[in-house]
Amino acid sequence: MAIGRVGFIGLGIMGAPMAANLVKAGFHVAVWNRTPARMAPLLELGATPADSPAAVAAASEVTISCVTNSPDVEAVALGPRGIAEGAGPGHVYIDCSTISPETARDVARHLQERGIAMLDAPVSGGDVGARSGTLAIMVGGEAAAFASCIPVLQAMGKTIVHVGPSGAGQAVKLCNQVAGGLNLLAMAEAIALARAADVDPARMLEVVSAGAAGSWMLSNLAPRAVSGDFAPGFMVDLMQKDLRLVLDEAARSHTPLPGSALVNQLFQVVQAQGRGADGTQAIVDAVAWLAARPGS
Amino acid sequence: MAIGRVGFIGLGIMGAPMAANLVKAGFHVAVWNRTPARMAPLLELGATPADSPAAVAAASEVTISCVTNSPDVEAVALGPRGIAEGAGPGHVYIDCSTISPETARDVARHLQERGIAMLDAPVSGGDVGARSGTLAIMVGGEAAAFASCIPVLQAMGKTIVHVGPSGAGQAVKLCNQVAGGLNLLAMAEAIALARAADVDPARMLEVVSAGAAGSWMLSNLAPRAVSGDFAPGFMVDLMQKDLRLVLDEAARSHTPLPGSALVNQLFQVVQAQGRGADGTQAIVDAVAWLAARPGS
Amino acid sequence: MAIGRVGFIGLGIMGAPMAANLVKAGFHVAVWNRTPARMAPLLELGATPADSPAAVAAASEVTISCVTNSPDVEAVALGPRGIAEGAGPGHVYIDCSTISPETARDVARHLQERGIAMLDAPVSGGDVGARSGTLAIMVGGEAAAFASCIPVLQAMGKTIVHVGPSGAGQAVKLCNQVAGGLNLLAMAEAIALARAADVDPARMLEVVSAGAAGSWMLSNLAPRAVSGDFAPGFMVDLMQKDLRLVLDEAARSHTPLPGSALVNQLFQVVQAQGRGADGTQAIVDAVAWLAARPGS
Amino acid sequence: MAIGRVGFIGLGIMGAPMAANLVKAGFHVAVWNRTPARMAPLLELGATPADSPAAVAAASEVTISCVTNSPDVEAVALGPRGIAEGAGPGHVYIDCSTISPETARDVARHLQERGIAMLDAPVSGGDVGARSGTLAIMVGGEAAAFASCIPVLQAMGKTIVHVGPSGAGQAVKLCNQVAGGLNLLAMAEAIALARAADVDPARMLEVVSAGAAGSWMLSNLAPRAVSGDFAPGFMVDLMQKDLRLVLDEAARSHTPLPGSALVNQLFQVVQAQGRGADGTQAIVDAVAWLAARPGS
Repeated sequence: MAIGRVGFIGLGIMGAPMAANLVKAGFHVAVWNRTPARMAPLLELGATPADSPAAVAAASEVTISCVTNSPDVEAVALGPRGIAEGAGPGHVYIDCSTISPETARDVARHLQERGIAMLDAPVSGGDVGARSGTLAIMVGGEAAAFASCIPVLQAMGKTIVHVGPSGAGQAVKLCNQVAGGLNLLAMAEAIALARAADVDPARMLEVVSAGAAGSWMLSNLAPRAVSGDFAPGFMVDLMQKDLRLVLDEAARSHTPLPGSALVNQLFQVVQAQGRGADGTQAIVDAVAWLAARPGS
Repeated sequence: MAIGRVGFIGLGIMGAPMAANLVKAGFHVAVWNRTPARMAPLLELGATPADSPAAVAAASEVTISCVTNSPDVEAVALGPRGIAEGAGPGHVYIDCSTISPETARDVARHLQERGIAMLDAPVSGGDVGARSGTLAIMVGGEAAAFASCIPVLQAMGKTIVHVGPSGAGQAVKLCNQVAGGLNLLAMAEAIALARAADVDPARMLEVVSAGAAGSWMLSNLAPRAVSGDFAPGFMVDLMQKDLRLVLDEAARSHTPLPGSALVNQLFQVVQAQGRGADGTQAIVDAVAWLAARPGS
Repeated sequence: MAIGRVGFIGLGIMGAPMAANLVKAGFHVAVWNRTPARMAPLLELGATPADSPAAVAAASEVTISCVTNSPDVEAVALGPRGIAEGAGPGHVYIDCSTISPETARDVARHLQERGIAMLDAPVSGGDVGARSGTLAIMVGGEAAAFASCIPVLQAMGKTIVHVGPSGAGQAVKLCNQVAGGLNLLAMAEAIALARAADVDPARMLEVVSAGAAGSWMLSNLAPRAVSGDFAPGFMVDLMQKDLRLVLDEAARSHTPLPGSALVNQLFQVVQAQGRGADGTQAIVDAVAWLAARPGS
Repeated sequence: MAIGRVGFIGLGIMGAPMAANLVKAGFHVAVWNRTPARMAPLLELGATPADSPAAVAAASEVTISCVTNSPDVEAVALGPRGIAEGAGPGHVYIDCSTISPETARDVARHLQERGIAMLDAPVSGGDVGARSGTLAIMVGGEAAAFASCIPVLQAMGKTIVHVGPSGAGQAVKLCNQVAGGLNLLAMAEAIALARAADVDPARMLEVVSAGAAGSWMLSNLAPRAVSGDFAPGFMVDLMQKDLRLVLDEAARSHTPLPGSALVNQLFQVVQAQGRGADGTQAIVDAVAWLAARPGS
């Protein structure tokens, strides 16, 4: 039986367009946000307001959350007036936040005791992908729960992969942040070297993006960085949060990741400049800073 | 007046398919290679053999070289029986090798004194791009010489950008190697973390490649690395040669590139394992080696 | 009035000889250890056993602890049967463990409410310095409490410096671990290069130790490493615990420390080899491992 | 038979006091310097001027050089009016410069054909050690030549070690620069963390220098750096020259040295700030720069 009623918790820069795409796809969508004002645009599109995560879950067959970090997920899922209080057996909870694999497994275990299935389903593709419904979604959890939610996930993303059991979605997201972080450093050092050699970075990007050194970051964020547009897509402070999760997970499993450790330190340069709320493309200025060319 | 006769010097893993694409595009192609046996497949396609770079140049309006490093280019262009001896005023020499920007400028200066224009035109896209004629070509040199050679370049590549004066093509190629090298490290650390978290790397790649952390390396080389295929595309020893050019150029201009310096050291791990002739995807094993999981 | 009765909690590789030096200096010393068997050698020297941290504190004017990490200090100081239960106003608690500056400040604040002064007084100098009573002790806390405890501290160390208010001792200890960790890497890379150049590392150490590149690590740990003696002094796992404190503190204050981040990753290589219980000189083998010369 | 006549070529910041110590030790010293004015202070002490390296060698039994880099040594030893032209069989040439081990071996081989023995004998200890005659001297070459020159070397240094055959002295000097460079980074990151934690760096240094994290750099250069004294001892530009030799030698032998590569990049930050002529303690400002605290 197809899912018709979907709840959505967390209407930020990512969550709001994801919820909007669910409405547009024809789902009945109940929404809740800590700051209620942010619900307005969704209500205009036809979503229904709820006054707590529990109320969202009570009105839905599947509840999705997209919040900031591990304590937020624990509160939304297991806290007072949380999803566990409103959802019954057979309900599926899909968390699209980026949190530690261990927390994902812990929350899933608690919900399972009440008959609620949980999928950890973090996403990649930025605000652009959230709006266009072309996110990559990496899903951990039971295969049956995953299968039942495919139509819901397809309303938000284009590449949807079941990557393993509970926690595996978050583990893959950490791999994603490792790759993304180093691709950002790649972009920053390439631009720094172009400037040092008196080559127009825009010309460099045009040709390098088209070859074996091309990447999503180079095509999408590098032009913004070169033109001085540091508005976030994805904020440096959040990237640092994710890189801390990466380095904690790597330490737990004794996996040396020297490149990721360096990227983490270079984003600290950006934060030291008071620019933690800029987009991750600001790493370009951190590397320029090393070369004492912040103004170039 | 359109160019009809093109010479090609250096028929290696890149040069051979590039020359073949020129033949297929209808140019009369004269070829020379240090090891003559490698000329045979080109001659079968219809190319004409020559017995020296000078002879190649004498038979052509434009001469292209694709050799290994700076001394090779100096020998081919300016040495005994080199291009300078066979080419007359108006000839254009296009060097597709990756060498230092300074050497490119020096050779161009010497040729210019004899009325020969030189374009430094290194390429990106690997053996795959060379065969399919979809290389990215970054060109430095005089705008007029560039304009006259566009049809020749289009027979070999898809994205062809004039990036600046003599040497600028090589400078952009160094930017390309910076970005490519760090994208390779991104791939290696993402795979290492997936394995440490007991996630199937192939599943991880499927979804990460589709999002904001995607890159050419992730799509093209990561699957090879995960399946244990380390046949070169582009050899580690050559990547190290290019990274040395990068770090020399960065040192010359006092441009700190800590990520590129780290990538260079990690490729040294690969070389220390006696695998300098493997493809650059072998960096995956260097990072696995750090985690004492070389067999995984 | 001079202090005569001193309590000591935590009789490990560092604490045991520190407590012994207090006995030898003429203090009446009450001891407690989680594993009671480890008290025996101290009791033979003349120390008095106690059955809890509270009992130690009740029998003493000053109580010292030397335990592993932040939760241990919180338990010993503030937990059930902890120091706070046995100590009265005017008591001074000296913690010689290495913990986060924030935890040190928190515990001090709680104790202060009960009239108990706390000094954070981590040490440096290894097991060698603990036995010989030549430790460097970096002390944070109230100047008056520090002044009253100088004779106690002098029984255990040689260089005793009041470095600032509560937490400052721990902050300086983190600086110490930054310097010590990088000095260990210095030692490891120097030995790796000597071996690569077919130079006897022992000869190299003899002369390098005597010049501007000399360090305590080079004089004391390098000869052990070169001769294959990896018995701890200070264990890799504990060094990693301290480096995590360093990187957390650095992240909190947005202070990029790329060298310390690299050292942390290289100790992860040692841990990945299953050698977390070896002494920190094992980093020499991590760097040798990079060069695929683990057996040399 | 004891050596009485010693020549000295290269009277810079290191060479001048080394030559002065030879005069004070009673040797007859002939001197030559590219910039003749720098000979004056030595002549006042009693040295004899010569008008070329050949003339220095002709007047001496042993000739010492202390110049900047490999081409300087080749010119002084083998060039027109060089040592080889003035020295006869049995002469010993001692080069105290820091150059590549390969160049040292090459020059030694050429001199040996003329019966001239060469010792590569680079030094450590800075300008301070040069003045006080307490340098560490690491000597490569034939044991007999070394034995005959011990009294000469003892006039300039305190720790004199024969480390192996020709080139071994230079190899050990590169090990020395690896250790020294990383000890400098240790110092810089420790100071950065102290400042971030609002701890007085001078207090931190007092206690950290006395423990297991102590080093020559921490005792001698850190106080200068903290007080804003960046006058060279040893210039950043020269340290970079030596680190390039280190990284070239490491690349040649496939020895990954990630820490040394990072130090090299951080000194590039100093150079990018236009401070290549400052002393190596300026690395403290490079790390402060990362934290956007250049003025603190």
